Amino acid sequence: MSENKIPYKIYLSEDEMPKAWYNLRADMKNKPAPLLNPATHQPMTRQELDGVFCDELVQQELDNTTPYFEIPREIRDFYKMYRPSPLVRAYCLEEALDTPAKIYYKFEGNNTSGSHKLNSAIAQAYYAKNQGLKGVTTETGAGQWGTALAMACGYLGLDCKVYMVKCSYEQKPFRREVMRVYGASVTPSPSNTTAVGRKILEKDPNTTGSLGCAISEAVEAATSTPGYRYVLGSVLNQVMLHQSIIGLESKIALDKYGVKPDIIIGCAGGGSNLGGLIAPFMGEKLRGEADYRIIAVEPASCPSFTRGTFAYDFCDTGMVCPLAKMYTLGSGFIPSANHAGGLRYHGMSPVLSQLYHDGLMEATSVKQTDVFDAAERFARVEGILPAPESSHAIKVAIDEALRCKETGEEKTILFGLTGTGYFDLYAYEAFHDGKMSDYIPTDEEIARSLSQLPQVD
Amino acid sequence: MSENKIPYKIYLSEDEMPKAWYNLRADMKNKPAPLLNPATHQPMTRQELDGVFCDELVQQELDNTTPYFEIPREIRDFYKMYRPSPLVRAYCLEEALDTPAKIYYKFEGNNTSGSHKLNSAIAQAYYAKNQGLKGVTTETGAGQWGTALAMACGYLGLDCKVYMVKCSYEQKPFRREVMRVYGASVTPSPSNTTAVGRKILEKDPNTTGSLGCAISEAVEAATSTPGYRYVLGSVLNQVMLHQSIIGLESKIALDKYGVKPDIIIGCAGGGSNLGGLIAPFMGEKLRGEADYRIIAVEPASCPSFTRGTFAYDFCDTGMVCPLAKMYTLGSGFIPSANHAGGLRYHGMSPVLSQLYHDGLMEATSVKQTDVFDAAERFARVEGILPAPESSHAIKVAIDEALRCKETGEEKTILFGLTGTGYFDLYAYEAFHDGKMSDYIPTDEEIARSLSQLPQVD
Repeated sequence: MSENKIPYKIYLSEDEMPKAWYNLRADMKNKPAPLLNPATHQPMTRQELDGVFCDELVQQELDNTTPYFEIPREIRDFYKMYRPSPLVRAYCLEEALDTPAKIYYKFEGNNTSGSHKLNSAIAQAYYAKNQGLKGVTTETGAGQWGTALAMACGYLGLDCKVYMVKCSYEQKPFRREVMRVYGASVTPSPSNTTAVGRKILEKDPNTTGSLGCAISEAVEAATSTPGYRYVLGSVLNQVMLHQSIIGLESKIALDKYGVKPDIIIGCAGGGSNLGGLIAPFMGEKLRGEADYRIIAVEPASCPSFTRGTFAYDFCDTGMVCPLAKMYTLGSGFIPSANHAGGLRYHGMSPVLSQLYHDGLMEATSVKQTDVFDAAERFARVEGILPAPESSHAIKVAIDEALRCKETGEEKTILFGLTGTGYFDLYAYEAFHDGKMSDYIPTDEEIARSLSQLPQVD
Repeated sequence: MSENKIPYKIYLSEDEMPKAWYNLRADMKNKPAPLLNPATHQPMTRQELDGVFCDELVQQELDNTTPYFEIPREIRDFYKMYRPSPLVRAYCLEEALDTPAKIYYKFEGNNTSGSHKLNSAIAQAYYAKNQGLKGVTTETGAGQWGTALAMACGYLGLDCKVYMVKCSYEQKPFRREVMRVYGASVTPSPSNTTAVGRKILEKDPNTTGSLGCAISEAVEAATSTPGYRYVLGSVLNQVMLHQSIIGLESKIALDKYGVKPDIIIGCAGGGSNLGGLIAPFMGEKLRGEADYRIIAVEPASCPSFTRGTFAYDFCDTGMVCPLAKMYTLGSGFIPSANHAGGLRYHGMSPVLSQLYHDGLMEATSVKQTDVFDAAERFARVEGILPAPESSHAIKVAIDEALRCKETGEEKTILFGLTGTGYFDLYAYEAFHDGKMSDYIPTDEEIARSLSQLPQVD
């Protein structure tokens, strides 16, 4: 294998790294629907959003027309500490699968947060710092986003308060500890520290929590503490913008070697990785310059694209946040506690939701045990122990590669390997010990949750 | 900071990666003393060693004259999955310390085993496979070596039995789980599965284990099972040879930018990382082509260089292994259970021991709480959460950089960042909660352990 022209890993030089983020919305014919004020159902104004988010981020959130945003020098310097991330040619996986397919993955896990989340965390923390704020609040599910934000805040000297979904807090004590190393405070959610948390606990004292609950608490903590703002690791347009660095780097690396992917695959929870990975490719597709098959992979236990509805919904369980038009399972939907890892959000990025609705991408859902099976297979041949989230993409990439084996097609597959599974070993243990099960919500369960969608004309 | 000529991270291209390991012994005037048969006190013959180690590795172990060993293509292909490792210019740390020193570190943690150990693991597993063996046995302390060997064996389809020091096994359940992902079996040591383990347990049923015990068990398991050999992650000459890849890559990267380090710093347990990092630099020093200040950093709780004796000693607690001439605290020395992480071996690589004895390098010891303090400081500015082992080098690198600040000297410091601390979060937690203490063995304790050295003329 050693005489291949394309190296195992393609690293860009610092000079080749993108200097601007790409705003996919600028090329979308059908723009994502605006966020609505939950009380008035009118589009959120800048002023309304300024109370929750930093000024600069509000601007990025609302801008549907500017194609590129320059990445501030300070953020580019921070990126240089852990980027460019490698674009890996999966020679060993190809050989193990005996497939004619050519498989590439963009590996975002080579940093202490263990995922791509740091790309947006440093951007959001930077703008908060720049605005003279004292600190930020956020929620975290599997813990990658919280860790990333803690790292970014630790670096900039900003205070960081993290509300962590209770079941993850308990399953992942080490995640909490990493956040502490970086100086963040971590509270299991729902908690008694907020009004909304107390209300949720009153209703169900044994709840294992959800991202939706944790968001409500983090927003309340931010809006009730002077000098604080709320930041979010996924779903929002601004996050898709920052994460475009993933796709931009991937595209530059592939272009260097004249490689054009046929299929692009990413896991999808709130959509931050997928939106980032596909951004420049989708841009070409929207502009009619190229075509790509793009596949979102979600867990069968939290299938917002494949079994949800495209409608306005609350972004949080506490129903205090703006309404977003997205594929949703209903803001009251809480994935089964046996679901390991992230990808547990009830909704989906409005940008991706619109693209999916317009038929520009596909979506599929996969079962948890199949995902861990693919994860282990991947780990043994490619070395990297993948995060459960990332392994959703691995599962479908393997399936597509095996399909190529059947048909003899030499397709080029690109997938996003968003992170590592070093803090998910309890889940791997459960898988090994045969204690992991698959939970697929019933139609009734989803219908019940969707019956509480807000009525928006 | 962004306009620096030297990038934050220097990656070699695949073409630039070393194609041969460097055997430092070839340039040593005073060769390391040979291993002795523990019964006869005569130098171990090839035949005797063949029963324990793979044939090819025995040859590498005994060869004191060949300067370069070609790296087999299969191993170079495996290296390409996770190498080259980045040589990082620590701009952020320099700024935080406000030092005129220029700090570089070679980061070996960007792989699932989380350390440099994989460099030798794949080599040893490859030669075992090549010889038609069924499997290998080994010991592991902090777990990096065991994980690395599990990964290498999983990749090659070799069976892998790991004896893990009991206190690490209990402190690090996740390490065990990673090894399982790669298909290895893991037994806490001492165990009832070997005669030597039963004997040690009989003497002290509550022992927390030591690397020395685990080595005895792994050797017994290998020599009593047909088709198995024993492999070791440190101390041995062959390991220093394989780990020379660290120093060779570092030197190529520095040479590209015309940078010459003044001070080279590495943590030292058995010496695998330090020996690898310094290899080509020490070679130049031995040949009179250049001079470098080289510093080994060891824990104050296990200070073999700084408080041990240069003498023949057993490599293991069970006294079944060959004798090696090395700096040792006595094969019965077990570091305090409050010592977190690795660097807990009673002896030191014979190669490094000879170099230290000949005045070609320095050694210093540092206290655990100071090490974690440096680790956290480093993590917040450089992003990477370091392993406790690696943080010994960080501590001394920071001290040297602060000395430069006092004197105004613009020294160039290179240190080895051997790995990440993702599986050491209990130790970080103890540090944060003020529950971490420093243990420094008393003179009596060391003297007692040293009184049991074998008598060799």
